[in-house]
Amino acid sequence: MHFLLENNMKTRIAIIGYGNIGKAVEQAALAAEDMQIAGIFHHNDNLDAIDADVAALCTPTREVPAMAERILRQGIATVDSFDIHGQIYDLRQRLTPIAREHNTVSVIAAGWDPGSDSMVRALLQAIAPKGITYTNFGPGRSMGHTVAAKAIPGVKDALSMTIPLGTGIHRRMVYVELQDGADFKTVEKLLLADDYFAHDETHVIEVPSIDVLNNVAHGVNLVRDGVSGTTHNQRFEFNMSINNPALTGQVLVACARAAVRMRQEQRHGTFTMIEIPPIYLLPGNEEQLIRSLV
Amino acid sequence: MHFLLENNMKTRIAIIGYGNIGKAVEQAALAAEDMQIAGIFHHNDNLDAIDADVAALCTPTREVPAMAERILRQGIATVDSFDIHGQIYDLRQRLTPIAREHNTVSVIAAGWDPGSDSMVRALLQAIAPKGITYTNFGPGRSMGHTVAAKAIPGVKDALSMTIPLGTGIHRRMVYVELQDGADFKTVEKLLLADDYFAHDETHVIEVPSIDVLNNVAHGVNLVRDGVSGTTHNQRFEFNMSINNPALTGQVLVACARAAVRMRQEQRHGTFTMIEIPPIYLLPGNEEQLIRSLV
Repeated sequence: MHFLLENNMKTRIAIIGYGNIGKAVEQAALAAEDMQIAGIFHHNDNLDAIDADVAALCTPTREVPAMAERILRQGIATVDSFDIHGQIYDLRQRLTPIAREHNTVSVIAAGWDPGSDSMVRALLQAIAPKGITYTNFGPGRSMGHTVAAKAIPGVKDALSMTIPLGTGIHRRMVYVELQDGADFKTVEKLLLADDYFAHDETHVIEVPSIDVLNNVAHGVNLVRDGVSGTTHNQRFEFNMSINNPALTGQVLVACARAAVRMRQEQRHGTFTMIEIPPIYLLPGNEEQLIRSLV
Repeated sequence: MHFLLENNMKTRIAIIGYGNIGKAVEQAALAAEDMQIAGIFHHNDNLDAIDADVAALCTPTREVPAMAERILRQGIATVDSFDIHGQIYDLRQRLTPIAREHNTVSVIAAGWDPGSDSMVRALLQAIAPKGITYTNFGPGRSMGHTVAAKAIPGVKDALSMTIPLGTGIHRRMVYVELQDGADFKTVEKLLLADDYFAHDETHVIEVPSIDVLNNVAHGVNLVRDGVSGTTHNQRFEFNMSINNPALTGQVLVACARAAVRMRQEQRHGTFTMIEIPPIYLLPGNEEQLIRSLV
């Protein structure tokens, strides 16, 4: 009886999109004691009759807004790792009335940056209100810069690594596999002139194969030196060295849990991670969590 | 008119207790754009007619529970930095019905550990659910160990420094100023046998004056190496090097803001920091905060 009760209380999560992130969400959901996979859907499947408590949107970022609207209109909660920093607030405003109208909850920008890093930035600004926060990324692959490099004429495949130089300044290490007959010097010149690369220290390196360089490791070094009250020189640092899709998938599952909890509490709407109590991200008994974590 | 409106919206904070922490809360409140000090009270003042939105309880930790009850019964929100880890959940359960009955909010254990570190621990457990978190404290003064050292016969004054050795193991460096005629070897033997020190590597050092060693610096190195989904070797680290009372005072002011916000939302009760959305800790415009931090 106890088992059935527990089983009934599992959150049924649908996974929409089955690339790196969708697969990582599947692994994180299977490993979670309180989750049950309600279905895995390719993003062009029929999505109009999904039976789930929450859907993890693992489609390319630009498809997220329309997909979120479509799922929310079914009253299903959504989580996504929409990652265009400048458009997150606008997405929140777009989805808020839809989520409210359908008595559901959407958690957006739930990855590691934006996402868990955002929670750390908010906390550090609260406890040292004056000061500068630097978020240093890498070493790790930049998706945006990799796509830009691949678009250069003569490039067959490319990989752009982000190397942190501190104080938010980054070096770009761009590995290119050339098309037959392409001239490296010409490719290098075009790439260095591209707006994605023109403003940073950039090195272009020709390699015989991009495939053998493939590695989903990434990292963050987030630093704040600030003032608490009138006391200067309060120093904080958050570091991580991680498998990028695995962490993103895990954050999505944690936020799926939070979305369902907030819907149970009738707190309908759209939320970024800094609007969520950290305990909502965790499974298990409230007393036990408070006793072990606080 | 705009100014008056803003002024009216300031949170009126009372400070109860005026030692290191009370003074730090005063500084943090004066530096905060949205706070106004409603009064500073010694803990034995008449506290039965306080006119404030929220009271920061800056009394010794053992006086906090009774003081919180007394203030909550006036319908005033409270924040405290109650720091006896094993008793935090019990304090929450004790204050919850009182806060609810009087339509108010209490935020407890709002310092840096318990407090902001707790939020980091909760976040890291959510994003790497399997693994071990080590919280390494120091170098910095341990209040509990300092009090224990002062209680040893023959000790005039003492200071116990906590030195982190990693994986949650700490060395105790205990500086003692002896009473006239006291024998160092006897004091050392008694101290090393005391339950506070018997389980850790402890060094006792005689000094002519404790006063000249006084320094409120402290630090934390919090490490988690865990698993996201099925992916091992996800590594996280949070470091800080801080002025201890200044940070505690700032956290109290941030949580005073959150307490008032939660009361406005009719979410009455008692909360630890892991139950609070990080954005509630911050002053200012929601849109601006989300745009700059997420």
